[in-house]
Amino acid sequence: MHPPELRQHFASDNYAGICPEALHWLLQANASGHQPAYGDDGWTHRVSDRLRDLFQTDCDVYFVFNGTAANSLALAAMCQSYHAVICTPVAHIETDECGCPEFFSGGSKLLITEAESAQARRGKLTPEAIDFLATKRSDIHSPKPKVVSITQATELGTVYSVEEVCAIAAMAKRHHLKLHMDGARFANAVATLGCHPSDITWRAGVDVLCFGGTKNGLPVGEAVVFFDRELSADFAWRVKQAGQLASKMRFISAPWLGMLENDNWLRHARHANAMAQRLYAAIHEVPGVRVMHPPEANAVFAHLPRAVIDILHGQGWRFYEFIADGGCRLMCAWDTTPESVDAFAADLTAACTAQA
Amino acid sequence: MHPPELRQHFASDNYAGICPEALHWLLQANASGHQPAYGDDGWTHRVSDRLRDLFQTDCDVYFVFNGTAANSLALAAMCQSYHAVICTPVAHIETDECGCPEFFSGGSKLLITEAESAQARRGKLTPEAIDFLATKRSDIHSPKPKVVSITQATELGTVYSVEEVCAIAAMAKRHHLKLHMDGARFANAVATLGCHPSDITWRAGVDVLCFGGTKNGLPVGEAVVFFDRELSADFAWRVKQAGQLASKMRFISAPWLGMLENDNWLRHARHANAMAQRLYAAIHEVPGVRVMHPPEANAVFAHLPRAVIDILHGQGWRFYEFIADGGCRLMCAWDTTPESVDAFAADLTAACTAQA
Amino acid sequence: MHPPELRQHFASDNYAGICPEALHWLLQANASGHQPAYGDDGWTHRVSDRLRDLFQTDCDVYFVFNGTAANSLALAAMCQSYHAVICTPVAHIETDECGCPEFFSGGSKLLITEAESAQARRGKLTPEAIDFLATKRSDIHSPKPKVVSITQATELGTVYSVEEVCAIAAMAKRHHLKLHMDGARFANAVATLGCHPSDITWRAGVDVLCFGGTKNGLPVGEAVVFFDRELSADFAWRVKQAGQLASKMRFISAPWLGMLENDNWLRHARHANAMAQRLYAAIHEVPGVRVMHPPEANAVFAHLPRAVIDILHGQGWRFYEFIADGGCRLMCAWDTTPESVDAFAADLTAACTAQA
Amino acid sequence: MHPPELRQHFASDNYAGICPEALHWLLQANASGHQPAYGDDGWTHRVSDRLRDLFQTDCDVYFVFNGTAANSLALAAMCQSYHAVICTPVAHIETDECGCPEFFSGGSKLLITEAESAQARRGKLTPEAIDFLATKRSDIHSPKPKVVSITQATELGTVYSVEEVCAIAAMAKRHHLKLHMDGARFANAVATLGCHPSDITWRAGVDVLCFGGTKNGLPVGEAVVFFDRELSADFAWRVKQAGQLASKMRFISAPWLGMLENDNWLRHARHANAMAQRLYAAIHEVPGVRVMHPPEANAVFAHLPRAVIDILHGQGWRFYEFIADGGCRLMCAWDTTPESVDAFAADLTAACTAQA
Repeated sequence: MHPPELRQHFASDNYAGICPEALHWLLQANASGHQPAYGDDGWTHRVSDRLRDLFQTDCDVYFVFNGTAANSLALAAMCQSYHAVICTPVAHIETDECGCPEFFSGGSKLLITEAESAQARRGKLTPEAIDFLATKRSDIHSPKPKVVSITQATELGTVYSVEEVCAIAAMAKRHHLKLHMDGARFANAVATLGCHPSDITWRAGVDVLCFGGTKNGLPVGEAVVFFDRELSADFAWRVKQAGQLASKMRFISAPWLGMLENDNWLRHARHANAMAQRLYAAIHEVPGVRVMHPPEANAVFAHLPRAVIDILHGQGWRFYEFIADGGCRLMCAWDTTPESVDAFAADLTAACTAQA
Repeated sequence: MHPPELRQHFASDNYAGICPEALHWLLQANASGHQPAYGDDGWTHRVSDRLRDLFQTDCDVYFVFNGTAANSLALAAMCQSYHAVICTPVAHIETDECGCPEFFSGGSKLLITEAESAQARRGKLTPEAIDFLATKRSDIHSPKPKVVSITQATELGTVYSVEEVCAIAAMAKRHHLKLHMDGARFANAVATLGCHPSDITWRAGVDVLCFGGTKNGLPVGEAVVFFDRELSADFAWRVKQAGQLASKMRFISAPWLGMLENDNWLRHARHANAMAQRLYAAIHEVPGVRVMHPPEANAVFAHLPRAVIDILHGQGWRFYEFIADGGCRLMCAWDTTPESVDAFAADLTAACTAQA
Repeated sequence: MHPPELRQHFASDNYAGICPEALHWLLQANASGHQPAYGDDGWTHRVSDRLRDLFQTDCDVYFVFNGTAANSLALAAMCQSYHAVICTPVAHIETDECGCPEFFSGGSKLLITEAESAQARRGKLTPEAIDFLATKRSDIHSPKPKVVSITQATELGTVYSVEEVCAIAAMAKRHHLKLHMDGARFANAVATLGCHPSDITWRAGVDVLCFGGTKNGLPVGEAVVFFDRELSADFAWRVKQAGQLASKMRFISAPWLGMLENDNWLRHARHANAMAQRLYAAIHEVPGVRVMHPPEANAVFAHLPRAVIDILHGQGWRFYEFIADGGCRLMCAWDTTPESVDAFAADLTAACTAQA
Repeated sequence: MHPPELRQHFASDNYAGICPEALHWLLQANASGHQPAYGDDGWTHRVSDRLRDLFQTDCDVYFVFNGTAANSLALAAMCQSYHAVICTPVAHIETDECGCPEFFSGGSKLLITEAESAQARRGKLTPEAIDFLATKRSDIHSPKPKVVSITQATELGTVYSVEEVCAIAAMAKRHHLKLHMDGARFANAVATLGCHPSDITWRAGVDVLCFGGTKNGLPVGEAVVFFDRELSADFAWRVKQAGQLASKMRFISAPWLGMLENDNWLRHARHANAMAQRLYAAIHEVPGVRVMHPPEANAVFAHLPRAVIDILHGQGWRFYEFIADGGCRLMCAWDTTPESVDAFAADLTAACTAQA
């Protein structure tokens, strides 16, 4: 009667379910009887405070349903329709949000950096690229740059260092641009860096962070964290108007308690990252496999022979091809098992060997 | 450590938690391991089929996060920015969505009917009112009417009969207007009417139904049901662009299984309706209480003396005042207990008596 | 070969042509050879300076194509999509812009005052009405009031006194609302008041004025004048993005020179106003005619017997019926002749007499 | 007292004034006394009929204020916010409209073709490029392609042949895409091709043409011509809502009579084209000058030495650099004189010689 369970796969970290700690607090929230709606409940207040504690600063926190909305609402709060957002060609807001940033902002344009440099090939924005786009046009026939958006960890599985974010923030500031961080896999980045979450956000010059929860183990929901609280003026109205205000908010917010207590969010991220390292170690020297770069977060990007891809797909393994010219994307989740990694690596090795 | 449980209250049916049947399937969905994202999973397909079975027709079904989005996306699919939607002055889309219909449609205007007639005072649209607004202006300086929107059950706790909806649909058709039904409390209406859900929707001429799940016992999520499938062309893109596509969709869809199996959705609605009747019976003859009209769904609307309101609020009872000139709104949920109704009625009676 | 000239009529002041002074400078601008586009020409700079001189302050001036755009862009600059604009039920932005304010702002809602009070029946907003709407709702389910919009002269041919505008501005300020003035017939209002144009604008607390040129004798174009220059940040980009930036701008701007020199704008307005007074004097005591109120600008609003309307229309006279419950609108233009007024009054009197 | 006349220059064809024939009819329209507003006048009807005659088909014609609006409204009529428009990287709608297409459509994304092929370097779209982008993505995370937009003549001064447009239209049709033609310089293209205007538009498969008037000698205004009349359903409301409906419409429409009678529009275009040929002949063999390609319309694109550019600018010559990697753009207008061309060529030659 149930849908058949997928063989564990490497398609996306959002194929995974709810982690036990998040589920625990979802059930607790449900057991608390009637609660005020629209976020005016004790659970939501408590989680917001926990997030402020986590970041060690008095930031504004809002919960929305998904990353599409989190990023697009944050960007809309940072720019008008005739403004522009600087980002990479592989930025998720550019490639996979079906124009939601443009829709929510009423037409803001994304200014895309060149894809040529070494950093760009690793999915990263550079201060130089920002400088170029921020000064390329100043006439009114082109949208005025207003925001820089970076993804941490990037869409290509790399991670900006604290120094890199600081340098980006400095260049953004120099051009009076705000700095947005798409943190769909923020946990994986922090796990890799080993820094305090504040070090890679507001202490590095980030104005707004979209803190991803779903890929880290939540059922639904992301947090928009405004370190620059001037940018969140009337943001509650914006969230409501955009259809992103949950009536039974506690079921969106309470599960975060499970992520935040005992640093479970980092523990899950570390595990996913470790699985990516395990996978990398197992396949990067296999003949026929060309890994783009060593994984820094929870994904391995590799070019595989066509025939190998077909064999693996035929065996029931799932993963995406052609992600941002990075070849095949092999993504690990909070619950990816070593056994699954090993089985996949074995099948991959066998297929490559057969092809050779 | 938990937020204090509210004394059972009458503020809103969205203060209630998740009903057991929905929770059961949420947990089952989580136990099914990895599943494809974005609705391409077995749970979502199964629930969609169940909804088609329920309505006995080949409708298109989409799941979104809340009623704000469901209604606003449905309306946007039915009209362009320079079109207009005819509705009552108490329509939720007019009074409580913070302009989301206008935002999602890019500027469509709501044309509001007069609030004077007997039907209007009960929150209902009439064919005459539609006829008037549909023909009042035909010049290009005024948005062209394109859609009629009715709420079933209404915001004032009344229910349109099948004949009433048919008459509205006929007038809409006469003016080439599409018919949208805001069914945030659709279950309560069907429970009252005792008709088949198809009788009050597509068989009566409804083009699109927003079928509310949250107020009926779900944690989060509503279904947009297109009976006119031409209207849903490319709707999946619209949902994605508007930030309403859940990545872990199964947690939005699977709980519907619990609502639909064994007609639990109707059982819960009948219970909530019965609690409203119980409350009505207990208070409508209390001196000082002026009930607007006998409840037809799950709410009682009554004018209460100011002092009585203050006393009840002081005792911890929660309910809204000044809803659409209907006075105090006393709303019952799927889990409102008879004891809670009786206790509230007793406190209300005592307060009124003390005042007299 | 030409379209037949209309018998002089009273339908609208935008049926009139270009006044000689405006035409003179249009031709001069054309005779000046090649000129830079998009407003970077000497004509546009000169006219902008003249407008600053006129208002005796360092305001920001932008030229757009029509009043629809002027008002809607100004309002969009003053509020976000989830904000609201307070105005009267007869405000042109509410009744005759086909939702352009909502479209340009991305969904801002107009909050409409009640139509009951004596002032409201004369088309005017009151401080009390603003106070009521500004405080009626403060929850996030309703758009947050951000702007007050008044029309000067009003859509019903009345004129706000300096004191009235000051009182409105004070109430607006008290609620942190900005004050917008739709000045499609600003000239007629100033002509009536006999005050300095600064007295009824920024000195009275107006933040942005849309200064109408077309109805006053220009071929095309209005000026948006920002007295609060913070509101005009990046407004040039907004104008461009909204399709309101003329490439050959000098043909929009230069004709203003003709209006401004020698106070021609006031002379034309005084003439139109005088024609309305002449018409009023000639008809307000005719049996069957019920004038709404003595004209204060360039229009008379009167209820006429159905048969009389039909007779006059049959004679080729043009005017609108049913304007904002004000009955027939008889509008005078900068070039309406006394002979035309007298002929119309005679026909009207004859028709009424025949009916009596 | 007048702004100083520019030395004749090569910056843009919109630096030129009103051609005598257009001015003649503007003055005639003004001499016709009062006329109905908003396009319900005889002038506008007559010009619309003339345009239908010109194109030999029963198309729908609308007049708007500028090319930004014409293109953006046409595109918005052809796609929803979650749809995409395929165009070249040098398309004016992409590079110089400040996001108006995105703004008017509520977020439609432009899908930009690669800039590598020989055709692309000449500013042209190819069937292959359309095929690639139309099939690259079909998932709901990317906007669905709906329209192909080509510019005729292109932004790089080239002209699509009838065969090229037919091939593009066929590929568009194969993918169920509509075909839009940005005809800001349509006259110059037709003058070059020597074909009938219908041959390069609807007979070649174009659905909507934005027919430029301003660059061809009008003061203000463009025509949007719908050959596919289903696409213009309710377009009048769209125009009004977008602030593009002129009240004194006759001053926008009547000047077109001057363009259309005696094929003046083609005569002016032929002249401008001839001036570009004259300029090309005079400079393309000058040492240091590297002309991109022989001119096909009214502009020459050439790379010039930095020092030469500076010298010419210092002499008062105006032209744009860095247009779409095409180097300096030398644009001729309907009134560019041979003397001006010769003088510029002489100065250019002298500067190059001095540099050599």
